[in-house]
Amino acid sequence: MKLVWFLPVALLIVTQVALGSNNGNNGLDMAAQRRAANIHRMDTIILLTYVSVMVVIVVTAWAFKHYRLRFIHESGVTLFYGLLIGFVIRYFGLGLLQSQTFDVETKNKTVVKEPPDYLMLEVKPEGGSSVSFHYELIEGFFADKRKKIEQQIEQKSVFSPEVFFNMLIPPIIFNAGYSLKKRHFFRNIGSILAIVFIGTTISCFGTGCLMFVFTSIFQMGYTFKELLFFGALISATDPVTIISVFNDMNVEADLFALIFGESALNDAVAIVLSEVIENFSTSSEAITLHDFGSAIAGFAGVFFGSLMLGFGIGCMNAFLTKMTLISEHPLLESSLFVLISYISFLVAEVCGLTGIVSVLFCGIAQAHYTYNNLSDESQSNTKHFFHMISFIMESFIFCYIGVSVFVTNNQRWSFSFLLFSLISITASRALFVYPLSWLLNIRRRPKIPKRYQHMILFAGLRGAMAFALAGRNTSTENRQTIFATTTAVVIVTVLVNGGLTSWMIEYLQIKHGKDAIEEGQRLENSMSCSRGEQHSDLEETIPVTMAPGLNPWDKAFLPRKWYHFDASFMKPLLTHATPSLEQTLPPFCLPITSLLTSSRQRAYLNTDPLDTIVQSGAASLIDGSGCVEESV
Amino acid sequence: MKLVWFLPVALLIVTQVALGSNNGNNGLDMAAQRRAANIHRMDTIILLTYVSVMVVIVVTAWAFKHYRLRFIHESGVTLFYGLLIGFVIRYFGLGLLQSQTFDVETKNKTVVKEPPDYLMLEVKPEGGSSVSFHYELIEGFFADKRKKIEQQIEQKSVFSPEVFFNMLIPPIIFNAGYSLKKRHFFRNIGSILAIVFIGTTISCFGTGCLMFVFTSIFQMGYTFKELLFFGALISATDPVTIISVFNDMNVEADLFALIFGESALNDAVAIVLSEVIENFSTSSEAITLHDFGSAIAGFAGVFFGSLMLGFGIGCMNAFLTKMTLISEHPLLESSLFVLISYISFLVAEVCGLTGIVSVLFCGIAQAHYTYNNLSDESQSNTKHFFHMISFIMESFIFCYIGVSVFVTNNQRWSFSFLLFSLISITASRALFVYPLSWLLNIRRRPKIPKRYQHMILFAGLRGAMAFALAGRNTSTENRQTIFATTTAVVIVTVLVNGGLTSWMIEYLQIKHGKDAIEEGQRLENSMSCSRGEQHSDLEETIPVTMAPGLNPWDKAFLPRKWYHFDASFMKPLLTHATPSLEQTLPPFCLPITSLLTSSRQRAYLNTDPLDTIVQSGAASLIDGSGCVEESV
Repeated sequence: MKLVWFLPVALLIVTQVALGSNNGNNGLDMAAQRRAANIHRMDTIILLTYVSVMVVIVVTAWAFKHYRLRFIHESGVTLFYGLLIGFVIRYFGLGLLQSQTFDVETKNKTVVKEPPDYLMLEVKPEGGSSVSFHYELIEGFFADKRKKIEQQIEQKSVFSPEVFFNMLIPPIIFNAGYSLKKRHFFRNIGSILAIVFIGTTISCFGTGCLMFVFTSIFQMGYTFKELLFFGALISATDPVTIISVFNDMNVEADLFALIFGESALNDAVAIVLSEVIENFSTSSEAITLHDFGSAIAGFAGVFFGSLMLGFGIGCMNAFLTKMTLISEHPLLESSLFVLISYISFLVAEVCGLTGIVSVLFCGIAQAHYTYNNLSDESQSNTKHFFHMISFIMESFIFCYIGVSVFVTNNQRWSFSFLLFSLISITASRALFVYPLSWLLNIRRRPKIPKRYQHMILFAGLRGAMAFALAGRNTSTENRQTIFATTTAVVIVTVLVNGGLTSWMIEYLQIKHGKDAIEEGQRLENSMSCSRGEQHSDLEETIPVTMAPGLNPWDKAFLPRKWYHFDASFMKPLLTHATPSLEQTLPPFCLPITSLLTSSRQRAYLNTDPLDTIVQSGAASLIDGSGCVEESV
Repeated sequence: MKLVWFLPVALLIVTQVALGSNNGNNGLDMAAQRRAANIHRMDTIILLTYVSVMVVIVVTAWAFKHYRLRFIHESGVTLFYGLLIGFVIRYFGLGLLQSQTFDVETKNKTVVKEPPDYLMLEVKPEGGSSVSFHYELIEGFFADKRKKIEQQIEQKSVFSPEVFFNMLIPPIIFNAGYSLKKRHFFRNIGSILAIVFIGTTISCFGTGCLMFVFTSIFQMGYTFKELLFFGALISATDPVTIISVFNDMNVEADLFALIFGESALNDAVAIVLSEVIENFSTSSEAITLHDFGSAIAGFAGVFFGSLMLGFGIGCMNAFLTKMTLISEHPLLESSLFVLISYISFLVAEVCGLTGIVSVLFCGIAQAHYTYNNLSDESQSNTKHFFHMISFIMESFIFCYIGVSVFVTNNQRWSFSFLLFSLISITASRALFVYPLSWLLNIRRRPKIPKRYQHMILFAGLRGAMAFALAGRNTSTENRQTIFATTTAVVIVTVLVNGGLTSWMIEYLQIKHGKDAIEEGQRLENSMSCSRGEQHSDLEETIPVTMAPGLNPWDKAFLPRKWYHFDASFMKPLLTHATPSLEQTLPPFCLPITSLLTSSRQRAYLNTDPLDTIVQSGAASLIDGSGCVEESV
């Protein structure tokens, strides 16, 4: 009825328009509309391709888990799908869209020495006045310089390395920190740190030197700096594949902790090393001793600066969630948690530090302190959120690595360089695994057995971080070869080592499944007996003021000091854990400590401590270490 | 010890390098490195700015909730923060980074009539061979054509409209569908659909015609098509602000359903309308009756095509989760859920349909079927995931709308156009609210009271969708004015109407808080009495094979038919609900139905039906409608 009345009015106006139409749109509007539609179509096609592959990947991953297929790992399959998609995009001209490329020169004919960031071109549409359009430099499009960009879809399906560093990698690394199995990790912290710091450095310089020897012999024309850079980036091992196999097979916890610890932390060392090497004084052409010294100082500054920053931001969030009542609104609480975790990455990058290190330690701090202050809903939310995001990002990166082989124009393949690389990285890995284990075994109980050492050597898979680091700057041909080689190394190690992991576990007679669990319990019992304690499931829930021998950390001086500082100051300050600061600090601090003690802490004090332990939920608050103990 | 042995080797090689270094990097490498560093720095600064503002927004939102401040709404504050940031970026030269812009012309001096997609510029570094670099057309940078892009940060903080459409809006719309309060929604479905389809169309044409009258009188030079396009995009009302106020204040459920239903669904109508108008035959300069007819056909095709596609994809996922055992792996299950939901958007866009409609109905289907098949963990996961993502995206968009006022170069302000727009949209909204309500009230029980009608008129806030639609193409000056005006309308309605909503609720004496809940119960009791039933909380859990009068839908012919089809075919097919297909379909289908009946369905059959209902969890399986009943 409404419409009946409305139609004539519309028609009236329509006819009026037909007569009085003015201001003809001048072609530019239509061109813009066509272009916008084109770009939108292309973007959605590419997104659809990637998302569809991701669906296939998830279904495949499920099928593999369901039918217990182990001859090849999911990330291997993901890589393979990526290769397939890349091949199709490249050779079947999928989504070939027409576009125009014009050769231009500067108006005043000056010779351009460096590519400017923007160009401005005057366009004169028919019957209109001239309009200027802006053009932006495309990054990473240096190879095939003479090739016109006709196949937009290829170019469009290439991600900027910025997307990798700012978007895809941070959640993966944060999740590594947030879901750390703290107990076994801290029991092996000394060995892990030795492998991470000394091992990664040896691997970096070893690979660099060996490659330099090879390339010098065959006169391939690489500078030592380039090869050292390659050594640094290729030293970043990847936890995804190996840890997922280990999880499925339930291998011995100590081996798990060693390999997970190494691969989670050495990304950070590799990224700092590669940045330091990139910033070597580029004026002189050689690396001097002075460079070397300042590099080590720079390394330490950047690494520990980032560590402190990330940890500090995590603590800040813990304090915020403790002192406010934001936990009444789980949605806001979870959002704040996610945003602040991301900020720890961004602040570090803006300050010239390393975001990856920062976000990793922010994750650890959040798991250690903030997690305990969160509402139940937010605890489960944030845990699953990061778990899922990290899984999706990982799968996407492996898929993309596969695609990039066929699609990117900034990879230059060199079989000999790849061959030398594979030899060098294996040799330099062996160069630190065996000597370091020998050194560590002098004091370590239980020792690192030979079969662990072989497994650590074998577990040197490369992944997202190496790929992203190599793809960041591909302006010279040597860098393009390095990028291609890194891609190939990732593919080879994920397919070969990843596929053979379960076979290797059997071959090296590493305990897994039921054996490993029994062995772990036997070992734990004997260890706690030798310490004069009874093993019990409550171990972690006993109030921290009790004997220091109970703590799961090493008994070295520094860890013990930190543990006490943590228990008597950090946890009471940042969480609702008891005892509160009012009890752990001397009485003259009372004016301050009473401000920093939450009502929940006071409530616990007024109840019988044993009751509190028995209450589920309260247990994890007191100790706060059993929190995000889920598999990665 | 290891290091001691290693250092001499490194030094040896270092000296060797100092002597034998070759292949000097030719300046381009350094330029690329500098540029990469520059871009990275800029990107992180912008991201940090946005994420920091988001943190402030979350904290503000919490403070507002905590101290029950209602004079201004969070989204108003978010807009205000955005304006502030934009102002600072613009006028304080924050992050002014040096960049170069060169004026160029084509090599063969031809006059360019349309801007090409790419340019290629030859660069000749000192002492090196010349290299070509590619440049890409920057979208949405048409205003201030003579201004060189010195302030990269401004340009960089502008998002492509593609990001809005492909990334930010889909999760918000999906969440609207997924978290729909189905019971009240379906009780008012008839009125909602009338408002959405007839109302939005009237609003679109009404605004277009009124604006055409205004602009013709003042000779502002707009075509009817442009103004109709403006009418379409400005008809998309936004649920975020108003619904959050309604939730806080617990207003009457029917009013809530009407306003939420309108604002959630009319985005889809507005987007289809605007696309249809954009595709009016552009060859002739007038809109003919033929165009009008084909537009209506196109509208119906696109809308229902997208609806079916989205709903179908949702059902497919339900079937997949029912027939496989993927729920054993909640991580994979949740990931699959998220990816498939996103695919429903992408497939529709690639097929030339409307992704927003598709993703909305995919959300509804997923909530109705898939949700019941998910593991407990995935149920909570997906619910919270979309809730959080949608909250973050919404906040970001409001913040960005504020920033865009100062930062984008494609907004052209016209105060008179804005004034006319505000008059036109209010008038055309009144033009459908009151007549439509009068029409609906002829048959509707309970009637839509006057106070509801005033509130619906008042609740016409504009938001993300209008902004995104307007920003998609800003190639002409008229379009830039439309974009600026849309931005202003969003800001004005969110600040004024949003801020006054709670006052308006009091003024119109709309029941809220305890009153509304009591009123709701009283009404519900009287209604179920008049239907000859007893009101009970179990209403929704009674097996569907019982009397049709029990269903919460309207009793109109089509909804009743659909309800029965849903209960006897769709639910048994797609979920683990009982009765299974083996019972609802005739016996000769048994070979097929037994394939499609899950073991869980059979397990229910073998237990006593009454037991099943009492078991918690089973209840929601049987009916599947009380599932995602959380507040938005």
